[in-house]
Amino acid sequence: MKLYDASRAPSPRVVRVFLAEKGIDIPLEQVDIVNADNRKPPFLKINPMGTIPVLELDDGRHIAETIAICRYFEAQQPDPPLMGRDAREQGLVEMWRRRMELEVAMPIAQVFRNTSDFFKGRIPQSPEWAEICHGHATKRLEWLDNVLAGQPYIAGEHYTIADIQAMVGIDFGRVVDIRPDADAHPNIKRWHDSVSSRPSAKA
Amino acid sequence: MKLYDASRAPSPRVVRVFLAEKGIDIPLEQVDIVNADNRKPPFLKINPMGTIPVLELDDGRHIAETIAICRYFEAQQPDPPLMGRDAREQGLVEMWRRRMELEVAMPIAQVFRNTSDFFKGRIPQSPEWAEICHGHATKRLEWLDNVLAGQPYIAGEHYTIADIQAMVGIDFGRVVDIRPDADAHPNIKRWHDSVSSRPSAKA
Repeated sequence: MKLYDASRAPSPRVVRVFLAEKGIDIPLEQVDIVNADNRKPPFLKINPMGTIPVLELDDGRHIAETIAICRYFEAQQPDPPLMGRDAREQGLVEMWRRRMELEVAMPIAQVFRNTSDFFKGRIPQSPEWAEICHGHATKRLEWLDNVLAGQPYIAGEHYTIADIQAMVGIDFGRVVDIRPDADAHPNIKRWHDSVSSRPSAKA
Repeated sequence: MKLYDASRAPSPRVVRVFLAEKGIDIPLEQVDIVNADNRKPPFLKINPMGTIPVLELDDGRHIAETIAICRYFEAQQPDPPLMGRDAREQGLVEMWRRRMELEVAMPIAQVFRNTSDFFKGRIPQSPEWAEICHGHATKRLEWLDNVLAGQPYIAGEHYTIADIQAMVGIDFGRVVDIRPDADAHPNIKRWHDSVSSRPSAKA
């Protein structure tokens, strides 16, 4: 078993932090995304979508998609639970995780994809869409600050995959100058300091 | 327990089909999206994101996000399994479900959101982004046809939530004139006929 990784990209960091919280150690193999190796035939045989991370199982099958990989490990090793314990928690954690992905991390990623030199010539870009996503992400940070005024973690009382998704998404926001402001977003600041101080955050 | 539903929108249809496959019957409450009731304060108290469906639990808590609601019911009633049985299957089904959501259903939805009169004045629109998404969805249908040449269902040998996600996404494509072509996509056609003939498809 090994994980195809790209050490500077946000999505594989979600899996690395998740595994660190579980205490699971597996070999990592770096894919050179600067050289676009993930968009070339050898890697596209592993994952036709060209996305990283990808988990290679011992039977040779590949599981792509960050959250699918986390789901595999959550089922393999339920402790500590990061995706909810019972049905109710599983539903609520997945709701919060998706909000962090779709409302925070994805708009930030879209700003980067649609404006950066890194993606120029690799994918079609729309600066107009980047601007819409920038506004969306900014508005959602305000909303998130209010959420965190009432609860210590994204999904409530416990640290979960929703915190990992949010931390990685927000940290990546720096590359497009979207970042929580200590004055305007004191609750995000308090939460971010807390989750960033966990040893797993360095994974 | 009840489900906030919008009978003509794609996301709540995913949950209705999922529940029909499980044989679970719960009360539905329609939200008038034509009148934008989902974007007004009473509904925003239930789900600040304004999205439908939302599941109201008996304890008054709300689970929003289509897949989070499905996850809740999968944990409550594992049979028939629609999200994978063991860890390996759970990972693979989630990978395929996400591909259907992110690579097929979401680009189609983005074309609609960024071009339709329905969303004019409700959200900022980018026709430029719609065009990029139109190209992306079209390309992914070609890829999907090749996938379905080798397996009966989206995630392999069994009908799963990935089929529901794909069917609902592709059916919604009609509103923006993105649809599989019986000549160009014979495998999608065969699969689509099969999943559409299940009684659940009418839910």
